[in-house]
Amino acid sequence: MPLKYELIKTCKQSGARLGKIHTPHGTIDTPIFMPVGTLATVKTMSPEELKQMEAQIILSNTYHLFLRPGHEIVKEAGGLHTFMNWDRPILTDSGGFQVFSLSEMRKITEEGVEFRSHLNGDKLFISPEKSIEIQNALGADIIMAFDECPPYPADYEYVKKSLERTTRWAERCIQAHQKKDEQALFGIVQGGMYEDLRKQSAEQLTSFDFLGYAIGGLSVGEPKHLMYEALEFTVPHLPTQKPRYLMGVGSPDALLEGTIRGMDMFDCVLPTRIARNGTTMTSEGRLVIRNAKFEKDFGPLDPNCSCYTCTHYSRAYIRHLLKANEIFGIRLTTYHNLHFLIELMKNVRQAIAEDRLLDFKEEFFVQYGLHNNDKGF
Amino acid sequence: MPLKYELIKTCKQSGARLGKIHTPHGTIDTPIFMPVGTLATVKTMSPEELKQMEAQIILSNTYHLFLRPGHEIVKEAGGLHTFMNWDRPILTDSGGFQVFSLSEMRKITEEGVEFRSHLNGDKLFISPEKSIEIQNALGADIIMAFDECPPYPADYEYVKKSLERTTRWAERCIQAHQKKDEQALFGIVQGGMYEDLRKQSAEQLTSFDFLGYAIGGLSVGEPKHLMYEALEFTVPHLPTQKPRYLMGVGSPDALLEGTIRGMDMFDCVLPTRIARNGTTMTSEGRLVIRNAKFEKDFGPLDPNCSCYTCTHYSRAYIRHLLKANEIFGIRLTTYHNLHFLIELMKNVRQAIAEDRLLDFKEEFFVQYGLHNNDKGF
Repeated sequence: MPLKYELIKTCKQSGARLGKIHTPHGTIDTPIFMPVGTLATVKTMSPEELKQMEAQIILSNTYHLFLRPGHEIVKEAGGLHTFMNWDRPILTDSGGFQVFSLSEMRKITEEGVEFRSHLNGDKLFISPEKSIEIQNALGADIIMAFDECPPYPADYEYVKKSLERTTRWAERCIQAHQKKDEQALFGIVQGGMYEDLRKQSAEQLTSFDFLGYAIGGLSVGEPKHLMYEALEFTVPHLPTQKPRYLMGVGSPDALLEGTIRGMDMFDCVLPTRIARNGTTMTSEGRLVIRNAKFEKDFGPLDPNCSCYTCTHYSRAYIRHLLKANEIFGIRLTTYHNLHFLIELMKNVRQAIAEDRLLDFKEEFFVQYGLHNNDKGF
Repeated sequence: MPLKYELIKTCKQSGARLGKIHTPHGTIDTPIFMPVGTLATVKTMSPEELKQMEAQIILSNTYHLFLRPGHEIVKEAGGLHTFMNWDRPILTDSGGFQVFSLSEMRKITEEGVEFRSHLNGDKLFISPEKSIEIQNALGADIIMAFDECPPYPADYEYVKKSLERTTRWAERCIQAHQKKDEQALFGIVQGGMYEDLRKQSAEQLTSFDFLGYAIGGLSVGEPKHLMYEALEFTVPHLPTQKPRYLMGVGSPDALLEGTIRGMDMFDCVLPTRIARNGTTMTSEGRLVIRNAKFEKDFGPLDPNCSCYTCTHYSRAYIRHLLKANEIFGIRLTTYHNLHFLIELMKNVRQAIAEDRLLDFKEEFFVQYGLHNNDKGF
């Protein structure tokens, strides 16, 4: 078995779970935030920096690596771990979400999806079998079934047909998977914002006994309260003894709300993307470091943070670097934002251990300025 | 005295000198290559990485820091060392070269240079006094007198008038210098490609007894053999007991040729600039990593290199990152190129110690593919 989920305890204040996931490249503590390394690199960071901030697992993108440099090259290099010099666990997504959100002129059939590369317009095709072939070549510890991710909003009939195809594709992914002893395959529950469709998708997928389950199709533009409702009516249909992964979520409030509703794994480009634009997450809320008011602020980005950035550099220096388009500036903001979410999840795990996650959430929301604010980050 | 030069020995095969320079932030071994941190950051690198590659001193630019973020802000931050988190020696140039090469609509008078910022067109003025005021605020260990750097080619009369003004400006810099106990002021010898003018400039400047002397106005477009000739007829007019700095030179061949002619310090943006374009210096010569032939090359950038990049990543991976415009890729090439020159100068010092620098040069040129090639890098 390439993956074992160990449920340590459930929080007495909420549905939050404390656990561990054992993989071929090591054990991760859940709930956990996974930094995204789209193109076999977490943008601007070195593997050593990711370890220094205690990242335990990173995500990489099948669609992007299929386009560049090509999965065959990564395979020849000895797999993604060797290629990018990262010896801890990796999860690859299936390419489904990117095919639907990034590519052009896509045509969906029962066989798969034909699309044009967002880079050069090349006509390409990804089927469930192809997605697994690529992911087998990349060699991540956790791989994902190829799914269709409908947009929000989408009508009932479309979502129903789509999730049923995703179920059929999931079965084909299981058949296609060539490295069952080395890579754990997760299924992705779809069903949009419809309670009965989420139930249907979850029941169909759990019948295949995947090693873990993701909830896909959330955080795609819907109001956050709808996402939380969808979690509430989907999670009860997922098995307790398998990890649960909420895809594409990485704002501090959504990480907390997702955890409270029983999710174990999260990923999002948010912390790294906003960092490159100079927006940082701090214990006192969002801080836009390019702001003129930080010109002569010689204090740290976040006075309550112990990360490399906050212990070595001032707001004035980071602002200067960003204003001058200096790469070291976005290294510093990226480092801080990733550390912030990793540290947040460490504190979340501690709060679950102490059966006080709802109290922790209240305290965090007040400090972060999120109280009674549905907009979140 | 903020600076002491210790001449350890002279190579028996050449004019090369082995020495040490003691500064308030530590001692550096000469001959030495100084990475350039134009805007208070060596592009893409962290101070820790610079230390890991054994950079002993870095250079920063007065003109750029005057424009952004402004020297007063750096001063308020506690000076450049604190601002950028670099506790080893720093040298700042005077802004002279940049005013003449970067700014627009400059007007030179005896008083100083009026110019427009290359960033926003603001009308600005730098005089010898202003340059020293800025450099006193920045607080580098070594600061430079404000000079005029004539282009190549430039006619005799112009160069003569210019160097005489540079001499008068040098005297004003000495007068303006407010931190004589903390910062060592160097003079800059000009005189273009004219032997008698170089002699005149050197004699005038050495009469002021600076703590070190730079040779400016070389590597400004002239053929390399002319630069070497200019060094040969200028160096004899410089005192033996002071450090000698060849400004703006950083190709491997010119570092060797400059050292052989008795120069001790060098700086150049070449290694960092070409790295960002994917060009690397290796023990076997120049290597353009974006080249298609490296697509499936899983060996290191330079098989004879012990740097972080070469011990952890393949050519295929670095090529992939650069093709995808991933910042980590240019971090890796930058690291390697800087390490390459720092390592080269370490080997040069060893060769001087062993009285075999000319032999070392021959061996290096053959391996690097530079034999009988005036073009250099």
